[in-house]
Amino acid sequence: MFENKNSRTELNQLGEFGLIQYIKDNVTLSQPGSLTGIGDDAAVIDNGPGRTVITTDMLLEGVHFDLSYCPLKHLGYKSVVVNVSDLCAMNATPRQIVIGLGLSNRFSLDAIEEFYAGVMLACERYGVDLVGGDTTSSKSGMVISITAIGSAPQEELIYRNGAMENDLICVTGDLGAAYMGLQLLNREKQIYLENPQAQPDLQGYDYILERQLKPEARLDIIRRFKTWYIQPTSMIDISDGLASEILHICKASNKGCQIYEEKLPIDHLTRELGMELGIDATVAALNGGEDYELLFTLPISEYEKIKDRAEISIVGHITDVNAGYQFVDRQNGVHPLTAQGWDAFLSK
Amino acid sequence: MFENKNSRTELNQLGEFGLIQYIKDNVTLSQPGSLTGIGDDAAVIDNGPGRTVITTDMLLEGVHFDLSYCPLKHLGYKSVVVNVSDLCAMNATPRQIVIGLGLSNRFSLDAIEEFYAGVMLACERYGVDLVGGDTTSSKSGMVISITAIGSAPQEELIYRNGAMENDLICVTGDLGAAYMGLQLLNREKQIYLENPQAQPDLQGYDYILERQLKPEARLDIIRRFKTWYIQPTSMIDISDGLASEILHICKASNKGCQIYEEKLPIDHLTRELGMELGIDATVAALNGGEDYELLFTLPISEYEKIKDRAEISIVGHITDVNAGYQFVDRQNGVHPLTAQGWDAFLSK
Repeated sequence: MFENKNSRTELNQLGEFGLIQYIKDNVTLSQPGSLTGIGDDAAVIDNGPGRTVITTDMLLEGVHFDLSYCPLKHLGYKSVVVNVSDLCAMNATPRQIVIGLGLSNRFSLDAIEEFYAGVMLACERYGVDLVGGDTTSSKSGMVISITAIGSAPQEELIYRNGAMENDLICVTGDLGAAYMGLQLLNREKQIYLENPQAQPDLQGYDYILERQLKPEARLDIIRRFKTWYIQPTSMIDISDGLASEILHICKASNKGCQIYEEKLPIDHLTRELGMELGIDATVAALNGGEDYELLFTLPISEYEKIKDRAEISIVGHITDVNAGYQFVDRQNGVHPLTAQGWDAFLSK
Repeated sequence: MFENKNSRTELNQLGEFGLIQYIKDNVTLSQPGSLTGIGDDAAVIDNGPGRTVITTDMLLEGVHFDLSYCPLKHLGYKSVVVNVSDLCAMNATPRQIVIGLGLSNRFSLDAIEEFYAGVMLACERYGVDLVGGDTTSSKSGMVISITAIGSAPQEELIYRNGAMENDLICVTGDLGAAYMGLQLLNREKQIYLENPQAQPDLQGYDYILERQLKPEARLDIIRRFKTWYIQPTSMIDISDGLASEILHICKASNKGCQIYEEKLPIDHLTRELGMELGIDATVAALNGGEDYELLFTLPISEYEKIKDRAEISIVGHITDVNAGYQFVDRQNGVHPLTAQGWDAFLSK
């Protein structure tokens, strides 16, 4: 898969079966439960006793990614990560994925190799097996659909609807960087389009760019829950911005919430770049999306267990549903929290 | 879902969350194993002991379907069927599906209702639950990705690689009609494009059109295997034409085959339309695709159990791999069998 090729292999030389064979030859299975992978009508898995957890995500060129600045290897990696992140948000262990891939003839085998190199890297990183898929031609750009399968003991699963009044609202990592990274890439693309001689000015923003181009799912955190002896009452991953996600939890749990601006974990680079680009870092954290951090609620009795964890920030608490969804700014001004997250149909 | 609406609801009025809510409100779960459906980060299923079987298919507008003659309800139905067919080909019982759907703003809510009406009809027909999905905007037409989950006791699963020398090669139903139906629709579309006043001439071809627009998966047949006390040694569904599929079985099983033209089950309407359109019905059966019938192999000792079944045709037998892949025509001429099935990259 990582060989260097001098000549470009066209997809129409390879054909659909050739491409499937190529992918099959480059995939190894590591999960004991992955009994049959690519090469039959369906994959056969046995993830043992407990619950099977399934999630799916679709990524379309021009909507979710722009190949003019998103390298295919990163795209492959990220495609897996966004699904693994959904499984983590259920507190499930990711096990297998299947990939549907639509490609137009402008892609060469080298390009597909790059994409799958990223996919396999993510599979290795998160311990999941690629067990099946569908490849097809597309008339209009690249289409990626990934379904991920995980497992969990019934009693460990965490849903959106379990938040209780007075629970602490916690987030992992920091927020807003992925959105800021996207704005930076867009700015540099505009400059490049106006003047193709211009060199992109991305120096010093590696962290921000990586948050956009190569996000990670917080499998590390859900593994630590066990060693910390905590079991969140509700959980979701932050793909559409904190505001939208906490509203999902509140609505599913029939509760209200109070979120404090001063508690939001925002990296200093996100703030700096925000000032440069004229984007409020708080807005990026609340509504930006694509951070793939975890948002969860925890009984207040568990406070001692997490208060000194660098990876966790307490950003607010759950209230009675009648108290509504409130956002408290640095000046103690109280605002209604609304979901202005990335909306697939409004934003296009 | 089936209400009549007088005003067109635009997707951008509804938004992504509105659309998800709409779908959620119109889905009911019937499988006892579907524990949590739409509305969390992932679906939770428990398909009991035995094996879980997973398959995925991607359908792209302009490649796999043409909305100028494929009604959205039929498209929704067919999208489910092609996946259920893959599970049947493993001898597994279909249980759940997840759907990824990309839509551009030219689609209204009414259109999505039509699509999901077809999806739900197929779900009902095959006893599967829609447990999750992803909806997103698309810049270029409709994108459908379905992943289907089934289950089977380990010992009942049928793979492609179990064919043995002298096994009978059997197919269900009849072949070539779906391809012929597509040619008919294409002809009428051309006529319409040249003269929009012309009325399509589709009379008398209901069966052929239904085979193309509303195919069925042979869940009925795999259920009957048990009552007939037969367990095929290998099986695959016929999505790319008989020739391509028997080669998959032969290659996976390291065997050869002999297929007889005179044994191919071809409906008389397929032959008639073939003559009208100048397409050899045998070619349609061998290379046409989209029949979604089952192709399976059976020990010759089971001959008595199936010889009088109207749903089953014996079309040849498995040979030693050194005998190659042979097609015997009506004049007893022997030809090498080659996969000229629908090839995603060659045919575009």
